[in-house]
Amino acid sequence: MSGHANGRVETLRATAASRQALGRLAMDTRGQGLVEFTAELARWVAESGIQDGLLTVFCRHTSASLTIQENADPDVRTDLMAALDRLAPRTALYVHDLEGPDDMPAHIRTMLTGVSLAIPVVGGQLALGTWQGVYLVEHRDRPHRREVVLHIIGE
Amino acid sequence: MSGHANGRVETLRATAASRQALGRLAMDTRGQGLVEFTAELARWVAESGIQDGLLTVFCRHTSASLTIQENADPDVRTDLMAALDRLAPRTALYVHDLEGPDDMPAHIRTMLTGVSLAIPVVGGQLALGTWQGVYLVEHRDRPHRREVVLHIIGE
Amino acid sequence: MSGHANGRVETLRATAASRQALGRLAMDTRGQGLVEFTAELARWVAESGIQDGLLTVFCRHTSASLTIQENADPDVRTDLMAALDRLAPRTALYVHDLEGPDDMPAHIRTMLTGVSLAIPVVGGQLALGTWQGVYLVEHRDRPHRREVVLHIIGE
Repeated sequence: MSGHANGRVETLRATAASRQALGRLAMDTRGQGLVEFTAELARWVAESGIQDGLLTVFCRHTSASLTIQENADPDVRTDLMAALDRLAPRTALYVHDLEGPDDMPAHIRTMLTGVSLAIPVVGGQLALGTWQGVYLVEHRDRPHRREVVLHIIGE
Repeated sequence: MSGHANGRVETLRATAASRQALGRLAMDTRGQGLVEFTAELARWVAESGIQDGLLTVFCRHTSASLTIQENADPDVRTDLMAALDRLAPRTALYVHDLEGPDDMPAHIRTMLTGVSLAIPVVGGQLALGTWQGVYLVEHRDRPHRREVVLHIIGE
Repeated sequence: MSGHANGRVETLRATAASRQALGRLAMDTRGQGLVEFTAELARWVAESGIQDGLLTVFCRHTSASLTIQENADPDVRTDLMAALDRLAPRTALYVHDLEGPDDMPAHIRTMLTGVSLAIPVVGGQLALGTWQGVYLVEHRDRPHRREVVLHIIGE
């Protein structure tokens, strides 16, 4: 094992939890790449009036996914897409190839990165770290309209 | 960046949230492969009587995991298993090899695909996209009995 | 498809859900490796007094992540780190390389393993399987102070 947890969990809040909201966000992608939507999430959390709770983000696709990544240097996003291309190359042989050479790699990349995320909300703010941004990852070559569904619960 | 979010989140519902349920589903696997259980989830959501909220699925194993994938063409599932075999090959050298050549690859594949998923519930329905199905992924060669625990909260 | 779901979901509990808590845990890592914090989570769940509900764990970093893995044989953790090193090698060519050869691989490994996890709570206990432990994965070479934010909701 490498490192250790420091003692115990500090409780930040203990409150009632009586409210929730569901939302929907559409995004137009321009082919493979990452689309940030952190600001849209933060704005909706503020509009919901929920101060403390949990936000869940769900992507309704099998060839687009979600990730939380560094939002400072755009080169990071270039390298992330290149890494996914190495992990699920379009040049591999696939049984399922009727929908084009980018389709099956898109399914594999979606499986590796995932379609649901949960972020705590503390004092009306998403509890993201300094460098964390929330991204939809488009894995297909052509532009698509993508949809995420949001759920927030708390008080 | 590739693409952009379209304006703002549309609120679908804002309601009370006062109820929850916990459930358990057992599955018998027949060796490596994907087992769909979307219908079982949908039925339990309906039985819970919760119209709006959040469903969480949790897999209680370190050599079986969860994924949401295309439920149309079975060839996709064949290619997904082949991709996991390339990413965590059983022919690699592992320190931990006492439980057989399929054991350590199973742990790695579980780490890459994950053991928890959250899906919003809107109007009594899982907010899955048209082609999305929920699957348990068995990573061991031999049949196993696997167990997932479910949580639903909302109103 | 390989295997089948056995009939239907068994409901374990159906209760009110009126309370939540938010918490914070800091961890000092000693360079690349897995840091277990299952016991800290279990203790906080007990302190919260919530018997039935859902615990969410969120990691506030882009070069450290979360995984649920076997907590018995430490060799498993050695092999997991070696697998991540093969999947996102530090010897690959990256555009983003100003922060050292371990930085971009750390972002890729974080993307593949994820930063949020949800675990149901049943009868005051985390619904983990027998061999499951909860780990922070440090992907950088040097020691770091890492922070996870926790949310629990239920009754």
